[in-house]
Amino acid sequence: MRLSFPQCHFVLSARWLLAFCLYLCVPIAMAAADPLPSWTEGASRQAIVDFVRQVTTPDSADFVAPDERIAVFDNDGTLWSEKPAYFQLLFAIDRIRQLAPQHPEWKTTQPFKAVLDNDMGALADSGEKGLLQLVMASHAGMTTTEFEQIVGDWLMTARHPRFKRPYTELVYQPMLELLNYLRANGFKTFIVSGGGIEFMRPWTQAVYGIPPEQVIGSSIKVKFELRDGEPVLLRLPEIDFIDDKAGKPVGIHRFIGRQPVAAFGNSDGDLQMLQWTAAGEGRSFVMVVHHTDADREYAYDRTSHIGKLDKALDEADRRGWTVVDMKRDWKVIYPFEPPDSE
Amino acid sequence: MRLSFPQCHFVLSARWLLAFCLYLCVPIAMAAADPLPSWTEGASRQAIVDFVRQVTTPDSADFVAPDERIAVFDNDGTLWSEKPAYFQLLFAIDRIRQLAPQHPEWKTTQPFKAVLDNDMGALADSGEKGLLQLVMASHAGMTTTEFEQIVGDWLMTARHPRFKRPYTELVYQPMLELLNYLRANGFKTFIVSGGGIEFMRPWTQAVYGIPPEQVIGSSIKVKFELRDGEPVLLRLPEIDFIDDKAGKPVGIHRFIGRQPVAAFGNSDGDLQMLQWTAAGEGRSFVMVVHHTDADREYAYDRTSHIGKLDKALDEADRRGWTVVDMKRDWKVIYPFEPPDSE
Repeated sequence: MRLSFPQCHFVLSARWLLAFCLYLCVPIAMAAADPLPSWTEGASRQAIVDFVRQVTTPDSADFVAPDERIAVFDNDGTLWSEKPAYFQLLFAIDRIRQLAPQHPEWKTTQPFKAVLDNDMGALADSGEKGLLQLVMASHAGMTTTEFEQIVGDWLMTARHPRFKRPYTELVYQPMLELLNYLRANGFKTFIVSGGGIEFMRPWTQAVYGIPPEQVIGSSIKVKFELRDGEPVLLRLPEIDFIDDKAGKPVGIHRFIGRQPVAAFGNSDGDLQMLQWTAAGEGRSFVMVVHHTDADREYAYDRTSHIGKLDKALDEADRRGWTVVDMKRDWKVIYPFEPPDSE
Repeated sequence: MRLSFPQCHFVLSARWLLAFCLYLCVPIAMAAADPLPSWTEGASRQAIVDFVRQVTTPDSADFVAPDERIAVFDNDGTLWSEKPAYFQLLFAIDRIRQLAPQHPEWKTTQPFKAVLDNDMGALADSGEKGLLQLVMASHAGMTTTEFEQIVGDWLMTARHPRFKRPYTELVYQPMLELLNYLRANGFKTFIVSGGGIEFMRPWTQAVYGIPPEQVIGSSIKVKFELRDGEPVLLRLPEIDFIDDKAGKPVGIHRFIGRQPVAAFGNSDGDLQMLQWTAAGEGRSFVMVVHHTDADREYAYDRTSHIGKLDKALDEADRRGWTVVDMKRDWKVIYPFEPPDSE
């Protein structure tokens, strides 16, 4: 069969028609498949699906133009685990131990001594000041390219103490599905984390499908320098921005420049980001991940030092935000677990 | 004609085939049309086309994966004009005049007096400190939403003193074509400007096709506050970041997190951004717009106060970067000019 049009001539062969028909069939089959297979049927899952349907239906009063479909996700405790401590702190500790031979003074100086002695009590006693010293000693003093390499090497070799897996496998399967589901519906997905921006960027594309330029986080200052005529960016031991609590809406504004329509968090550090998203004009969706599953992951909320969820839980309750009960709402936690057979 | 496959049944009518064929023909016709009609045939245009072909040809040694095709553009003097002064300074001056009734003290205080007296000599004498005072008085003290409205209102009403057009029409037609051409070839286009990030974001999507989250610029600090329970971001009279000179690669690193493969600038303020882009692994493209056309736009370079192009011109010459001679290389300057009939 030969079709002829003014500027285009081509042959419709039987093979071509078959290929084209399969091309049409694939999206049809995909649409029919469940995009959220790890989510239990229930209110949380339903709230997600309803929201997405409402904002993507062109004649809906809640329709949001594709350009405006901005979704922001906290990382620690929302997309991957944060126990027994923020993974970035575990990285800093490993790095301090690795650098210790070049710093004999650390044997007698806190907080370094605590790290080398594996004395978590003394480390906790060193407080925020101690933590900052660890971060600067482990995260600054090299070029940005060198730091990316250091993070990459650590992620290849380090293993989680309980699950004996690379940290990048301790991501939540239901949240990976949610990220894909939102993107399939025209959303642009961003990370907005209190964690270090350069600790995340090397792996977020591979693990979450989120490119570096859609990762917002805390940062230290960098300085442009010519080294033997070659430009480098040197990481300085100086805080640039803390992307936590009231810093999160500030970070969103700085990097994205508009209010998200959907926000996902798990702790009081996310509260202002959730408030900022809920305050946007039009329909928005706000979700809090509640860690309720000590068997499969961890259970913690109001009194936890890391990932404390207290005020945000009250506000979620008061304002009708969706609270995900991990034990009830998620069939599986991690990608490496076999899905429940139901 | 009815086709049947396991999960898909549909009818191929004559009308359907016509629609589908037209759908195929449109991209074919577009590909055949010249994507850079305002660029004169010559070395500059050829360098652009060669670069794009090399990095997008899968079996080329210079192939760049679509994810890595990051292109950064300076704004003032590269995408739109910057004479008789940066348009944002003209905005600040208009805003100061508008606010003057509420500030009787400005009649006797520099640099405000200079603005109200239209005394550009005295304004220049007030130097960077004076400029900063003008920026803070005109750009801070309101919410981010209010500021966006103020910028939008100004752009609707203000007119360029020479061309009598809205400032957003004083964009370079050849650069609009270049932005589209790069995007059609899988590039993600970013603005990296010394100008204020929030002065640009309200209009870059409409004018350049660049969404807010791909605009990097200078910024003042903002603060998250609850006002009667409603969250707002308040603009503070305090510099956050200056995205100029050595700040440009820092801004690129902070916002994008990877080295661009193409960079476009016009002044010494762009030099470090151009160096940083040229230093990336693999093929890169670096271009300098040289203002050589006093008749159709402006002619300036080594001694200009605004948009000084001196060191970057020497470095472009030494390193073989592409230098666009506006008079020679561009058939038209602005979208509102009739194209040359050749």
